[in-house]
Amino acid sequence: MDLITRTVEAVTAPSAAAQEAARARQDAMTKPRGALGVLEELSVRLSGLAGGCPPPIPAPVAVTVFAGDHGVHARGVTPWPQEVTAQMVQNFLVGGAVVNAFAAQIGADVTVVDVGVATDLSDAPGLLARNVARGTADMTAGPAMTPDQARQAVETGIEIAGRLVADGYRCLVTGDMGIANTTASAALIAAFTGRDPADVTGRGTGVDDATHTRKIDVVRRALARNGLTSEAVAPASGETDPLGVLAAVGGLEHAALAGYILGAAAHRVPVVLDGVIAGSAALAAAALAPDAMGACVAGHRSAEPGHAAVLEHLRLRPLVDLELRLGEGTGALLAVPLVQSAVRALREVATFDSAGVTDKPE
Amino acid sequence: MDLITRTVEAVTAPSAAAQEAARARQDAMTKPRGALGVLEELSVRLSGLAGGCPPPIPAPVAVTVFAGDHGVHARGVTPWPQEVTAQMVQNFLVGGAVVNAFAAQIGADVTVVDVGVATDLSDAPGLLARNVARGTADMTAGPAMTPDQARQAVETGIEIAGRLVADGYRCLVTGDMGIANTTASAALIAAFTGRDPADVTGRGTGVDDATHTRKIDVVRRALARNGLTSEAVAPASGETDPLGVLAAVGGLEHAALAGYILGAAAHRVPVVLDGVIAGSAALAAAALAPDAMGACVAGHRSAEPGHAAVLEHLRLRPLVDLELRLGEGTGALLAVPLVQSAVRALREVATFDSAGVTDKPE
Repeated sequence: MDLITRTVEAVTAPSAAAQEAARARQDAMTKPRGALGVLEELSVRLSGLAGGCPPPIPAPVAVTVFAGDHGVHARGVTPWPQEVTAQMVQNFLVGGAVVNAFAAQIGADVTVVDVGVATDLSDAPGLLARNVARGTADMTAGPAMTPDQARQAVETGIEIAGRLVADGYRCLVTGDMGIANTTASAALIAAFTGRDPADVTGRGTGVDDATHTRKIDVVRRALARNGLTSEAVAPASGETDPLGVLAAVGGLEHAALAGYILGAAAHRVPVVLDGVIAGSAALAAAALAPDAMGACVAGHRSAEPGHAAVLEHLRLRPLVDLELRLGEGTGALLAVPLVQSAVRALREVATFDSAGVTDKPE
Repeated sequence: MDLITRTVEAVTAPSAAAQEAARARQDAMTKPRGALGVLEELSVRLSGLAGGCPPPIPAPVAVTVFAGDHGVHARGVTPWPQEVTAQMVQNFLVGGAVVNAFAAQIGADVTVVDVGVATDLSDAPGLLARNVARGTADMTAGPAMTPDQARQAVETGIEIAGRLVADGYRCLVTGDMGIANTTASAALIAAFTGRDPADVTGRGTGVDDATHTRKIDVVRRALARNGLTSEAVAPASGETDPLGVLAAVGGLEHAALAGYILGAAAHRVPVVLDGVIAGSAALAAAALAPDAMGACVAGHRSAEPGHAAVLEHLRLRPLVDLELRLGEGTGALLAVPLVQSAVRALREVATFDSAGVTDKPE
């Protein structure tokens, strides 16, 4: 059995008993019932994932930045030159980017993976060299990747998640870099959710009206060229081919992120999702293994409109909502202390009985 | 000159030059302009407070839980017995409450202050004993505090902020405990913002409809009994007496928190505000020294309706919005890593020039 199939089969449902125990514990803790709001349900979900209550605190933390380039860049979807992907990879490696600063703040380790950068980075110190292709092909002219490339990129994500868990990390965070990758994300979101490209294609790093209009048209053409009408991939059809969709309109970093999410879920380790890039990859992971969503925490709500469609489709509630639109894993890193706090409360807070505090009369 | 007057006079305007430098730095950093959303403006505000760019990282962190009881408890505004205040103080001191767990998660130190608990706690180990009164008087029958009590409580907050700053803390966090203190908060908010009590009185720890209706009526009667119609305290009147309002309908912990905020601002150290209790105290601090708001960061948006009125009045945008309604400082503690990350980005992220990354063409 191949690695993807084995990983998908290793992803199983959360433990209902552990969830129930977490709910009971929340109700016994020295605080009004429900007073921790969204964090209470988060602690329940993480208990279900761990298969016990309380779950371990999600630490240490690893953020992995998967970098890739996009053939669709040639269609004029962004004002940023393609070489910025490689330049930012170098910036990550020397610790100069926002992802490095946010990771340092919470003690997370940063791994940078070249899964599809167009520039030859084979001599970059510290880089995890897993280049599957020097960027994807132009998805308006045909599939962005061959089936084999998509498969290799997904396997890369699975492999890296497994390696990080083997190294002792107990919280994985998604990161990404790739000029033009919000265009691929929009196409994936339209394909997996059936939404119209105009509703899920945003301004990425901040494009003008003309570029935005062109970007929507590019997404529409890419979907049409690859036969991805909403009917073709709607979950109700029962004929979803998530790897095919990834290959058609995804990026190499999207495919790797889908694998990374599946890998985390197979190991029952929580994975905190960043914004629209991770979200579109999560759609692919969910299509392959719906129970993988039990491992996913939506770190933040990106300013990109497609991200709202993702969160709604996956029924995930984001923890941070501060109009970030950077990527790299930055929004997810901000959410990590909230996730850890939710679990820590479950582990450390006294109960009314143990603390001798009078409970509210019924 | 007395301590309050001296402190108010020490609160001065933020540095416009430092704010300008922070904006320029944000625009030069290796990220799309504006991509850090709300955190960019936060970094600008903290630069203005520090009087330089980049400002120091707000650490180490001290959270101070001011505890007090309320005479208005006798009016049936909550189902929780009054002794829970003292029981929770004991719980804080042994590390069993949510505030302890959240503080531990981010390495913050917890100080617990008895500024007005009804129970004699003088032999509680680790407690900072600053009891001004064994709870306030019933504000529906007259002022909750004497002018001298209010003054003493404010001075206590100033003193403790000063002591923490002297001990090296560079980020103060507000915490509070006091059964019935959302009732006093609602009265303060109605008084300082001119809003109707029905709009700003919430369900606190979760009261039923009958209790909620009674609570609104209690707030209304307290304001009337103390002559606090909206005309009496509206900022436009020019005759605001913030200490008088605090004494009339505040709690001892509210008064101490107002002093704590003023003290932090006077030392130009950021103070992260928790929910509706801290927010209503911040209204008093702002009325005494409007520039004190330059030191205030709204940690989170509480589920209490009065808190929205506070945030709007003070023009503060909360960082965390997760339907928490616990108090103790818990919501503010969750926000601290976000505040630290905002500053750290300003300090550590490379510029396009320094990193050799191509900027977006104009």
